[in-house]
Amino acid sequence: MKKVPVVENLLKLNDEVAALNRERFRSAHVLVLDLIGATGCGKTALLEATLRELAGQLRMGVLVGDLTTTRDAERLARWCDQVVQINTGRGCHLEAHQVRQALDRIDLERLEVLVIENVGNLICPVGFDLGHDHQVGMFSVPEGEDKPAKHPHLVQSASALILNKMDLLPHLAFDREAFRRDCLRLHPDLPILEVSATTGRLAPWLAWLQDRVTRFRQRAQAAGGLQTE
Amino acid sequence: MKKVPVVENLLKLNDEVAALNRERFRSAHVLVLDLIGATGCGKTALLEATLRELAGQLRMGVLVGDLTTTRDAERLARWCDQVVQINTGRGCHLEAHQVRQALDRIDLERLEVLVIENVGNLICPVGFDLGHDHQVGMFSVPEGEDKPAKHPHLVQSASALILNKMDLLPHLAFDREAFRRDCLRLHPDLPILEVSATTGRLAPWLAWLQDRVTRFRQRAQAAGGLQTE
Repeated sequence: MKKVPVVENLLKLNDEVAALNRERFRSAHVLVLDLIGATGCGKTALLEATLRELAGQLRMGVLVGDLTTTRDAERLARWCDQVVQINTGRGCHLEAHQVRQALDRIDLERLEVLVIENVGNLICPVGFDLGHDHQVGMFSVPEGEDKPAKHPHLVQSASALILNKMDLLPHLAFDREAFRRDCLRLHPDLPILEVSATTGRLAPWLAWLQDRVTRFRQRAQAAGGLQTE
Repeated sequence: MKKVPVVENLLKLNDEVAALNRERFRSAHVLVLDLIGATGCGKTALLEATLRELAGQLRMGVLVGDLTTTRDAERLARWCDQVVQINTGRGCHLEAHQVRQALDRIDLERLEVLVIENVGNLICPVGFDLGHDHQVGMFSVPEGEDKPAKHPHLVQSASALILNKMDLLPHLAFDREAFRRDCLRLHPDLPILEVSATTGRLAPWLAWLQDRVTRFRQRAQAAGGLQTE
């Protein structure tokens, strides 16, 4: 039986389109994050709170992936005019070509940061390069402390890991130390950002984001690609 | 360009193996459920509580799908000796051939009900027949009331929908009516079973399960395939 290496070809094609996206992001001097977390972990709530908090300080845009409905984009559009919804139908993750098409509907030149909110799924999105600078993983307290051990690929590839819904800690048996231990065993020095999007406890995430933006601008300036305003 | 219908072929092959599984389940008179829910919605906790509650009343077995780790199987094995873990590596859902292989490690003849706890993922598992009698969908309160609308395929294909973590309702802004409305719009008459696995509030789920077992046995008896003990 002849094996058809279809999956490898699809990933290779995806990587090629991701490289084109990356070029486009670089030339527009936009830092791009791929935000990956399960359904209901609070990705949209975090981005709403972030857009509200950083309004006037950081020019952000969001691409939102979802099977169906435009609810998330509508929620975000109240805080930001650079929001594009990508509906994947039955597709369980975003691919680079979907991001590429969505870029036609966003004004990259006006942005400093673009967050791609991936489809709510901890597994499939991890293997697809979208052209982003950083993958950011997201878990939430009600999911339980065993999730990093169960999703090692995301923990290993993420540049930072957000732990959301810290406000629910008093109502749940969640072993915070076991969570941290599993994360750091898989990825030493991984920043673990404990937040609560609904109560506005965002400081560790905002600090990480702003630090990344600063470093990104410094690198771009050093490379001569960015004019100081 | 010639299109290679690889996905269709994979699904067709999966369906063929699922049909073999179904034959095997039927001849052993075992009712089989495919339990599908996101990471951290409480599938394993529900099954632990169910096994504990129905010990001595219903002979149950569980196949547990997970990327990695055998933690869930270990949790369940405390309550039941017919538990098999299937590790999928990077695989985001169970397929019929994985279930088929796992059946070699379980004694079907001793069971009345087999629950297949699918990989924690609301999207990919939905399209794969495993040979089960019913798909059971599972959401949890912290995920938010918008999840049925965002995951219509699961809501439409499920025979029942479990809403877990009802104990967290006082601590969250969860619109219970919107949740029900979206479910019933997509799937009129869908049983919505509100439970809390950790506090032992299981009645609607246990009643649904026992009703299904009763109907299954009646059908099998009517077909002459099951001897009354």
